[in-house]
Amino acid sequence: MSINSPAGEELSALIAAAGVNMAASGSIPAIRRVAIFGGTHGNELSGVFLVKHWLKHGGEIARPGVEVRPFITNPKAVEKCVRYIDTDLNRVFDSQSLSDDVGKLPYEIAQAQKINSLFGPKGSKDAYDVILDLHNTTAHMGATLILESSTDDFNIQMCKYIQKSMAPLPCAVLLIEQPGVKYETTRSIAKHPIGVEVGPQPQGVIRADILYIMKIVVQYALDFMQYFNEGIEFPPCSIEVYRVLEKIDYPRDDNGDLSAVIHPTLQDQDWKPLNPGDPMFIAMDGSITYYEGEETVYPTFVNEAAYYEKKQAFVKTEKVTLTAQSIHCNSV
Amino acid sequence: MSINSPAGEELSALIAAAGVNMAASGSIPAIRRVAIFGGTHGNELSGVFLVKHWLKHGGEIARPGVEVRPFITNPKAVEKCVRYIDTDLNRVFDSQSLSDDVGKLPYEIAQAQKINSLFGPKGSKDAYDVILDLHNTTAHMGATLILESSTDDFNIQMCKYIQKSMAPLPCAVLLIEQPGVKYETTRSIAKHPIGVEVGPQPQGVIRADILYIMKIVVQYALDFMQYFNEGIEFPPCSIEVYRVLEKIDYPRDDNGDLSAVIHPTLQDQDWKPLNPGDPMFIAMDGSITYYEGEETVYPTFVNEAAYYEKKQAFVKTEKVTLTAQSIHCNSV
Repeated sequence: MSINSPAGEELSALIAAAGVNMAASGSIPAIRRVAIFGGTHGNELSGVFLVKHWLKHGGEIARPGVEVRPFITNPKAVEKCVRYIDTDLNRVFDSQSLSDDVGKLPYEIAQAQKINSLFGPKGSKDAYDVILDLHNTTAHMGATLILESSTDDFNIQMCKYIQKSMAPLPCAVLLIEQPGVKYETTRSIAKHPIGVEVGPQPQGVIRADILYIMKIVVQYALDFMQYFNEGIEFPPCSIEVYRVLEKIDYPRDDNGDLSAVIHPTLQDQDWKPLNPGDPMFIAMDGSITYYEGEETVYPTFVNEAAYYEKKQAFVKTEKVTLTAQSIHCNSV
Repeated sequence: MSINSPAGEELSALIAAAGVNMAASGSIPAIRRVAIFGGTHGNELSGVFLVKHWLKHGGEIARPGVEVRPFITNPKAVEKCVRYIDTDLNRVFDSQSLSDDVGKLPYEIAQAQKINSLFGPKGSKDAYDVILDLHNTTAHMGATLILESSTDDFNIQMCKYIQKSMAPLPCAVLLIEQPGVKYETTRSIAKHPIGVEVGPQPQGVIRADILYIMKIVVQYALDFMQYFNEGIEFPPCSIEVYRVLEKIDYPRDDNGDLSAVIHPTLQDQDWKPLNPGDPMFIAMDGSITYYEGEETVYPTFVNEAAYYEKKQAFVKTEKVTLTAQSIHCNSV
């Protein structure tokens, strides 16, 4: 495959032109261990397919001096093509679940502890440097990178690099940092966790177009790490991200059943502005629920199948700018 | 809601213009009992939503002189938002399953027997006249009516009426009559069974656009039955249908895992011609599997999530024309 990505020389030229003060830049250890997780949700098939493929064809993701390990995180859920067996694996990497040893554990808790021992321990110096966790959504989000911290310069630089490489295809960055909305993800055991979310794709389906987008996101991420390891300095940068504010549930009746559905003017409009007074939901009698907030927000995960049970029709986000100082590898 | 449907007077004018020989027409009993099934597959949510809605708001589907009964056929699967609990409810209405009484039955077999006692017995004079069974697909099939017989004049006339009423929106008719491909559906207990399949919609998701299409298909079907009961004569007609020929599986490796995916030129192209030499699948190394048949066929159910486990990437169909003689109600 031929990818039109920024080569090292172009980046060096960019850096020279920017007149970066090398002394002020962030000095970061080389990236030596990277995991690519698929099947954290067993019915999100692009990541399952890619990880299974790379387990057989590791050359496609090999990078000099880096261990790149593809891994199916929830094999039982993959086998049954369901999101999870007992509980959502992508919500249980909190310290209590990771240390719980009383009696028979739910499958995903036991699996979380196994993953933590293989790729963590979470928060320790032994944890993997980077985990790319591959997900699909039924929402029209396109390629999306999910950050858990607004202050991780390495990850911000990686997002910037992937966005540039993807252009003119869009690649949104979602920041899930808000207490009460943030959750303890599978990838959170890494020093630099990144979620890769690509949609729209139904659960249990593999689409070639979505598969391709996920593949190139991973390859650009690995390219970035390789350039970084080779000593390329990445100049200070800023990126626009969508920061999660709160989740919005569907209107429901007394039984908890949906009493209205996503309005057609909101459906498939992830990342587009939702202005005060815009429709959000419509019921069978034609009645409309309007957005009554005072600020324009940017909905995403609009009509994601897995979030009906989580009482979430979409999440409201706001646009914010994150900045990163220049970074370079301190162990070249 | 305002629907632009052929009113009785227009139909009478049509009939007069056609100079139909009333004596030659088919005389059929009035339609007195109609069931609308939702949730035969618990994660196909348009039908679930509509049936639950109509259970509360029966006036929308009421027709004079007809019992119209909305019914959730697989409530446990609906509750869990899965296709089925033990086995596919839409495949077990064979005589053996319906009469089996040995020991503890799988949930769907027990449910099939219950449904057969409520709306059947299958093949008897006591069976419901019409069952509309509501389904969704992840394939880009639009509105689709599924017939199980090429000789049911009443159903062919109903399809013709719905197609005319839907225009200029398309409404395909799929004929599943081929031995080896046909299966014993939930709706098969009715004298006139019709499957209503609308997509694309992911499993576990309700989209307003798909919901609307399903709603109007049901309403046009009920309108047709009402006009028929009122004595309107429907002149001889023909419709073009897609007759199922055989199913085609994905290329798979030794483990049974997919080794290739639907080619982008076939994805979302349900009902479009697949000509000899056209691509069907593409693997990660770029290798393509081409269609090597000698005749042009018309794929449908392309990349339906539920059919991965049934070893079916799509079904090949051929276009055939069905004809029906004129029909009128013999009990006005």
